[in-house]
Amino acid sequence: MSDSQNTYDLVILGGGPGGYAAGLRAAELGMKVALVERDKVGGTCLHRGCVPTKALLHVAEIVEATKDAGAFGVSAQFEGIDMPKALEFKQGITDRNYKGLAGLIKVNGIDTISGEGKLTGTDTVEVATDDGPVTLTGKHIVLATGSETKTLGIDVRDRVLTSTQALQYDSVPKSAVVLGGGVIGVEFASIWNDFGADVTIVEGLPHLVANEDESISKALEKAFKKRKIGFKLGTMFKSVEQDDSGVHVTLDNGEVLDAEVLLVAVGRGPVTKGLGFEEQGITLDRGFVITDERMHTGVGSIWAVGDIVPGLQLAHRAFAQGIFVAEEIAGKSPVPPVESGIPRVTYCEPEIFSVGLSQAKAEEEYGKDGIETVEFPLGGNAKSAILRTTGFVKTIRQKDGPIVGVTGIGSRLSEQAGEAQLIVNWEAFPEEVAQLIHAHPTQNEAIGEAALALAGKPLHFHN
Amino acid sequence: MSDSQNTYDLVILGGGPGGYAAGLRAAELGMKVALVERDKVGGTCLHRGCVPTKALLHVAEIVEATKDAGAFGVSAQFEGIDMPKALEFKQGITDRNYKGLAGLIKVNGIDTISGEGKLTGTDTVEVATDDGPVTLTGKHIVLATGSETKTLGIDVRDRVLTSTQALQYDSVPKSAVVLGGGVIGVEFASIWNDFGADVTIVEGLPHLVANEDESISKALEKAFKKRKIGFKLGTMFKSVEQDDSGVHVTLDNGEVLDAEVLLVAVGRGPVTKGLGFEEQGITLDRGFVITDERMHTGVGSIWAVGDIVPGLQLAHRAFAQGIFVAEEIAGKSPVPPVESGIPRVTYCEPEIFSVGLSQAKAEEEYGKDGIETVEFPLGGNAKSAILRTTGFVKTIRQKDGPIVGVTGIGSRLSEQAGEAQLIVNWEAFPEEVAQLIHAHPTQNEAIGEAALALAGKPLHFHN
Repeated sequence: MSDSQNTYDLVILGGGPGGYAAGLRAAELGMKVALVERDKVGGTCLHRGCVPTKALLHVAEIVEATKDAGAFGVSAQFEGIDMPKALEFKQGITDRNYKGLAGLIKVNGIDTISGEGKLTGTDTVEVATDDGPVTLTGKHIVLATGSETKTLGIDVRDRVLTSTQALQYDSVPKSAVVLGGGVIGVEFASIWNDFGADVTIVEGLPHLVANEDESISKALEKAFKKRKIGFKLGTMFKSVEQDDSGVHVTLDNGEVLDAEVLLVAVGRGPVTKGLGFEEQGITLDRGFVITDERMHTGVGSIWAVGDIVPGLQLAHRAFAQGIFVAEEIAGKSPVPPVESGIPRVTYCEPEIFSVGLSQAKAEEEYGKDGIETVEFPLGGNAKSAILRTTGFVKTIRQKDGPIVGVTGIGSRLSEQAGEAQLIVNWEAFPEEVAQLIHAHPTQNEAIGEAALALAGKPLHFHN
Repeated sequence: MSDSQNTYDLVILGGGPGGYAAGLRAAELGMKVALVERDKVGGTCLHRGCVPTKALLHVAEIVEATKDAGAFGVSAQFEGIDMPKALEFKQGITDRNYKGLAGLIKVNGIDTISGEGKLTGTDTVEVATDDGPVTLTGKHIVLATGSETKTLGIDVRDRVLTSTQALQYDSVPKSAVVLGGGVIGVEFASIWNDFGADVTIVEGLPHLVANEDESISKALEKAFKKRKIGFKLGTMFKSVEQDDSGVHVTLDNGEVLDAEVLLVAVGRGPVTKGLGFEEQGITLDRGFVITDERMHTGVGSIWAVGDIVPGLQLAHRAFAQGIFVAEEIAGKSPVPPVESGIPRVTYCEPEIFSVGLSQAKAEEEYGKDGIETVEFPLGGNAKSAILRTTGFVKTIRQKDGPIVGVTGIGSRLSEQAGEAQLIVNWEAFPEEVAQLIHAHPTQNEAIGEAALALAGKPLHFHN
């Protein structure tokens, strides 16, 4: 390549959601863009995260639908899971999305450079390609190198898995210990339990999905108990050994759990080591890249987006930050994405969504008497009854003020995150939502009912 | 009963969604309420309409999930439908909701009077109860007598059904002709096809679901063709005969369709005949009660809500009108529900939702060059790919103005009506929606993507 060929308006380090979103938007805005990716564009989300996990969660839903068919008057026999075929379905989804994404990147005129990239100057990136090192110069640089599974120093191999290996595990484990009761842990516990495995979650905090409203954690624990998913809360992992018979997990209370596999799901850390960031003067804090509120690193025209920036590690946050930075570089003075308005979803069965503040956080902010909450039970929602799911939608308002939090738990409730985030981001009053009409019979009505109740005029509900 | 016992603040004629919602809200506001119902509270929606139909549609979904299980790596055998058991499931949902509703009405202190009610004065209603006639006096009267299936003079018996009989049909018909390609017609066609029946829809208009955006009708027709649901568009029904071998339906083109059953699904008309409305000076137009925009009939303090008032015949419209009238009577000066902002859902497979204007209506209103539209294909939506559904979400904006219509077609899309109606009712600009973050991977992202594209910054999309 000639020098001019290697000169770009924007060089992006990392082709995951944050990186490719920045690239696509920048290309739309007329910039010449290079996207550096050591693996495949799409990142963790598409290849080892959200998408393949949700594919397996849907397989799990099909298993349950088949097993429960009799309750609906449908005669069917569940015969088992053909795991290689389930993995093929999952891989097919990833492959198809990957193909679509790669095509989109190409048609937008973005150069994808394959290889490990390293920041070697405030406007240069060196990529170790198969054909040797290539130096790219960018007027602007976006760091979007993402995250990887934390392992707490546990030796991941054979029967000790992270989510990456778990997604490729080509049989149903007879039994599994899941280390971590956060989003990833409860999603895999949910999948494996549906598939027939004997699952035990070990969580150091006092609750599953401890970042959610406490009522949600409790409801999930109740649902998991009913599903016979075991969990040990407030319990720390000490060590693991493995042999031909399986894994032997020792807890801090001395208890030893034996299982076929151990899944280490204790969170994800930023991928920033050895990539030249600090050498160029970029501030790292425990591995995370520190930026200002406009995603600027404080060095040259270097920006950072996605999981390497402290905050929610979510693909859709990365998309929004990527788009924002591209527009910022283009001088369009965009409004930065608001972290507190980002919807969060956990896709275990039952599903969980949340936007804005939990009750505890709202009480911290406005005082115990400064808020009002309503929990609308899905028992009063006809569509949820048809789906044979229980749970609730909870809305939290500032007293005489707007709705500051919406959360819910129940089958398929992930899709309610959309209306919920509009309500929270637009600081809607319950009275304004209650004035509007929700379609009957949908699960979505539960949001309307919770707003009606919070506005003091409950419909299918009595306190 | 003594006279004072029969004197109420509010007497409601009809215990369906419009009537009971008015009653519940009025009771919350401290009124003494009588609810007159000749059958069971809950009305058509709960007993013969929305709820039982959606229960059978879910049975149909389970059938499909079981049949398609292999595609997901789940080994299962579909053995057939146990129709009595499916009806039991459906009836269980209705019974449970009925029990909940009846309890809610009771706990709110509403008197339910069983029997056919008739308006006998501008403040009196006479009810033919099992114990003889009872006269109720109300300071205010709400008419909420609902609707019933139109039959075009067709003799409904044995193998000629309306939706009421179809919901009780205790076997899967081998074949069915469905007269009418509107909401009810396509929902039953969808159910019966999934159950294994050979279905043909006969529709006089040029499209299925002709009230929807034409792109939606075309997509549904394509999907139904793929599912081998037959339909004859622009074709009028002429006559039907039935004998032991089945029904023989003659069309205006001379063609004769033979089938096990004929479902007459040509719409619903208001129930207002012989109820004393006209005698009290209330204006009827082709059977519908004419009200002002605040639901007042122009006579005394008599109000009307729900399917007897011209407009969308939807339970959630009736709820909103009922709540509105109760608040109006209580002097709370509520804002009337806006008809154009009411979400509409058709629960066939694939599901359809729409809010606001179709493209044709938007072009009428703003001119062909006065609008912009985007169709975001579900092929670009990861969650929809996992559900193996196609379709799209379409957004329509006034040029440089707000979003005036949102519609979509695809499995499970009914739940998107919630965010869509907020967008349309709050007259949001695509740029405002695009600024906000939709959770990945959800179907809900398709609304975000359509807004992004309409705002000129498509993400997973290329025109």
